[in-house]
Amino acid sequence: MSHPLYQQHRQTLERAVSAIADRTFWSAYPEVPSGKIYGETAKADGQTAFDARLNKPFAIDQPGESGSVGEEISPFGPKLGITYPRIDLDILVPAALSAMDSWKRASIEDRGGICLEILNRINQHSFEMALAIMHTTGQAYMMAFQAGGPHAQDRGLEAIAYAYQAMTSVPEHVKWSKKVSKTDTVVLDKTYRIVPRGVAVVIGCSTFPTWNSYPGLFASLVTGNAVVVKPHPGAVLPLAITVEIARGVLSEQGFDPNLVTLAADSSDAPITKELVTRPEVRIVDYTGSSAFGDWVEQNTPQAVVYTEKAGVNSIIIDSIDDLRAVTGNIAFTLSLYSGQMCTTSQNIFIPKDGIETGQGPMSFDDVAGAIVKAVDWLLGDAKRGAELLGAIQNEGTIQRIDQAKSDGGTVLRESTPVVNEMFPEARVRSPLILKVDASQQDLYMREMFGPIVYIVETADTDQSIELAAKAARELGAITCSVYSTNQEVLAKAQDASADAGVALSCNLTGQIWVNQSSAFSDFHVSGANPAGNATLSDAAFVVNRFRVVQSRVMVPVEAEAHASL
Amino acid sequence: MSHPLYQQHRQTLERAVSAIADRTFWSAYPEVPSGKIYGETAKADGQTAFDARLNKPFAIDQPGESGSVGEEISPFGPKLGITYPRIDLDILVPAALSAMDSWKRASIEDRGGICLEILNRINQHSFEMALAIMHTTGQAYMMAFQAGGPHAQDRGLEAIAYAYQAMTSVPEHVKWSKKVSKTDTVVLDKTYRIVPRGVAVVIGCSTFPTWNSYPGLFASLVTGNAVVVKPHPGAVLPLAITVEIARGVLSEQGFDPNLVTLAADSSDAPITKELVTRPEVRIVDYTGSSAFGDWVEQNTPQAVVYTEKAGVNSIIIDSIDDLRAVTGNIAFTLSLYSGQMCTTSQNIFIPKDGIETGQGPMSFDDVAGAIVKAVDWLLGDAKRGAELLGAIQNEGTIQRIDQAKSDGGTVLRESTPVVNEMFPEARVRSPLILKVDASQQDLYMREMFGPIVYIVETADTDQSIELAAKAARELGAITCSVYSTNQEVLAKAQDASADAGVALSCNLTGQIWVNQSSAFSDFHVSGANPAGNATLSDAAFVVNRFRVVQSRVMVPVEAEAHASL
Repeated sequence: MSHPLYQQHRQTLERAVSAIADRTFWSAYPEVPSGKIYGETAKADGQTAFDARLNKPFAIDQPGESGSVGEEISPFGPKLGITYPRIDLDILVPAALSAMDSWKRASIEDRGGICLEILNRINQHSFEMALAIMHTTGQAYMMAFQAGGPHAQDRGLEAIAYAYQAMTSVPEHVKWSKKVSKTDTVVLDKTYRIVPRGVAVVIGCSTFPTWNSYPGLFASLVTGNAVVVKPHPGAVLPLAITVEIARGVLSEQGFDPNLVTLAADSSDAPITKELVTRPEVRIVDYTGSSAFGDWVEQNTPQAVVYTEKAGVNSIIIDSIDDLRAVTGNIAFTLSLYSGQMCTTSQNIFIPKDGIETGQGPMSFDDVAGAIVKAVDWLLGDAKRGAELLGAIQNEGTIQRIDQAKSDGGTVLRESTPVVNEMFPEARVRSPLILKVDASQQDLYMREMFGPIVYIVETADTDQSIELAAKAARELGAITCSVYSTNQEVLAKAQDASADAGVALSCNLTGQIWVNQSSAFSDFHVSGANPAGNATLSDAAFVVNRFRVVQSRVMVPVEAEAHASL
Repeated sequence: MSHPLYQQHRQTLERAVSAIADRTFWSAYPEVPSGKIYGETAKADGQTAFDARLNKPFAIDQPGESGSVGEEISPFGPKLGITYPRIDLDILVPAALSAMDSWKRASIEDRGGICLEILNRINQHSFEMALAIMHTTGQAYMMAFQAGGPHAQDRGLEAIAYAYQAMTSVPEHVKWSKKVSKTDTVVLDKTYRIVPRGVAVVIGCSTFPTWNSYPGLFASLVTGNAVVVKPHPGAVLPLAITVEIARGVLSEQGFDPNLVTLAADSSDAPITKELVTRPEVRIVDYTGSSAFGDWVEQNTPQAVVYTEKAGVNSIIIDSIDDLRAVTGNIAFTLSLYSGQMCTTSQNIFIPKDGIETGQGPMSFDDVAGAIVKAVDWLLGDAKRGAELLGAIQNEGTIQRIDQAKSDGGTVLRESTPVVNEMFPEARVRSPLILKVDASQQDLYMREMFGPIVYIVETADTDQSIELAAKAARELGAITCSVYSTNQEVLAKAQDASADAGVALSCNLTGQIWVNQSSAFSDFHVSGANPAGNATLSDAAFVVNRFRVVQSRVMVPVEAEAHASL
């Protein structure tokens, strides 16, 4: 008999497995924060639950606790005042390893059902999670709810679906029979066992702590590994809540809760290097800066490593039909969460001689000016501006804006502080837009994370494509956007993007933006350029989290003959 | 219209895809060297073709030729006298990379059809290949034909099947449609493109140059990469013939033959380190010693690396029904190709108090003696002995036999030179069998490649299992064999083997041996212990040889509505 939780969630899992194959639109967890879906009191309950977390220790009963850490400050103003246990890795990691003993021998269905139940519980906490995401990452409420809640849950489910499909593609038992001579047949009973790798570490980032962590967390867990979650010191709460829920479900189901543990640290005493180089650690999922990601890739030979690092994303403007639709779409992309998405465009390439539009030819300056105007208009409404921009996660990004301005280029649009009426203390800055020449590669051929945009004057669209591809190949890129009414240009951009390993979006207008990535359909990060070595999610993201070990037992042929009488 | 070669081989490919899923017995290429199958003149033609290769340069028209190398000596006696072009990597590797330009844009079906045609042609050369394998590796003729011919071809096809399945599991095009508000729907046309990694290097070994190389070669090629084949200096010819055939088919089909190239070197001027660390090289498949395999794993961060290294395989004897059937099976395993298979058992663990048998209790010494007697009987017939033992590939193995004897342990059976009547110059030595105590780990807890066997006296079967698992965990192991009439012991051995990542065979007798591994059913190497990080073949062996890069194009909704009128 299969596990009751597998029975309960089986349809969702099977639907997810078909979704990753057909890749049309699908979502398991509703993205609309509606009382009709989540319950009329869900929003208020979420607020109450979040408030109750503040200014006290986050209770989590893990082995190896030794002191506490806690330094989260909301980008919208207040200190969270939450402390988390600091842990002794010499106690925690062996406890995680030994927690695998019964988990790894559970069936694929048992583990799958339990992982889906964890996601289900997380989904029920989506309003609390929205506040936890908002007040650690600086995402505005709506985005925090969607990206940190249902979209992250969908990405977790997607990874489980890939892992489930991969594990179940290997039969559990087979009778193998080979005629070895005219009279003799050899029969073997073969058993294939899914064997996990060991302890997995998930390293969270400060901007998308759940969305970027859930795929690795659930892919490792469902394949039989234990998972140590190492949050960014500035965004612990969303992952602490996640770990709490996971531990609760595991305990209820009779498994060791140390299958999922929290390893919080502080920015002045980081533990990541010590953690990921431990011999028990056999899988690492990393999201964060390129420098540290490169270090992890090169210094953990005992582990398989999946990284999402940084990059330089481009927009190529060649020719457009409807100027307002295009500049409106671009302005939204540049403003959303103040450019703090790994998918946000940094460089906009426009030919120096201007472009063709549905309204006639336009000069470079007019196109650049229209983009600036669209941003101004979008942020002109204070409430809409606040909801779009969110807040700047950390002070380093503010300094980077100032640095960008002083480094050079012509300022087309100043970055200015913006007042958030609900949170007057919020750290908000609108996008800085600079004009540079294609030759000024020292300025724009570098990652400038945050609301910093370079509009680059190129010789022509061929050079624009070449420079966008160069950035992707050499610095990494996750997205590229192209606007052209010319099919040949689009085809050329598609070839160049494929070769540079960057996902391309063509002629986006309206309610869809280049920085959106949809679970079950969009492959996030190609793994084919320096922006990361893995994709959220594909088969390659899951199949090496477990191995298959076989055993074969001789079946005496007499017994066979006898059995068939 | 799909490619004529895809049409021609489609059924074979589809049958292979179903074979890797159901894992019952199947083979595409007949293992019987029969004139009825391969043509009445096939054997004689193969001999003629092989003879024509000898004592002259192997002509292969590759860029970057600069001088020649060639040092192959048949373990059965004669020097082959063949020279191969030495190549300049600064010319060859860029040529390989540029050969990918059209290949990577060919369809999955085109590449699949062409790869199957290459295998098909290789199959037609199986008799020539048998002689090439025999006179480089030292395998006896029949084994050289089967393992180096049809079995290797099956392993190549198996890898293609996994890769084909993985690539076709991603749709090429999808129309994605999401309702974003009560009135608006966003529609995107999405395209998913399979993008190869770059140049792949396959490093061959001296004992199974084709069997161990074909999976990596074909998995990389069919996924769009170029492949540089780097043979062991002592076993170049089988891979040179392979490269020649592949280049011929690729040229005929209008592709650049430099998609498959030969990078031969010499033992006094090896090129492997220079080759695998080049930036164009993004995939490495390695078979060989653990020391160099570890080096490759740790020094090629720019590439994904698949290794099969060495290990220490065990037999655990707990209790047996039919003594003669068991010792006969073990004797065959120990003698086949003089223990030069990575799957051959090295250590045989027997409890010091002896075991239960169907013929009553037997002492340790009697069981050990029965194994020795079975080897003596098997090799007593000179013709059978020669056909079983083959020849020792290299002089180092002879020295290792002498070393093992002088290092310690009680000699139960001397290793002696054996005369091969057909090839009086052949380098043939029968197995050395030593008795050691479980405490003498310095002797048996190390890899002693070749016809060297330790029979280890243990406290009991629990200790036998523990020591076999320890060897696997710490030194690596590919196979473990257990003999027991006790279901609890078998279950314990299964758990221990799974945890140690070693494939277990239980109670083998008759025409099936622990050192056999059957394509489409047996996973060769688990990747879960130091014997290697990859499996021949599974999904993990293929899915990271390519990446998927997507592009999405906005579909104006008016156009949609119009089209549906």
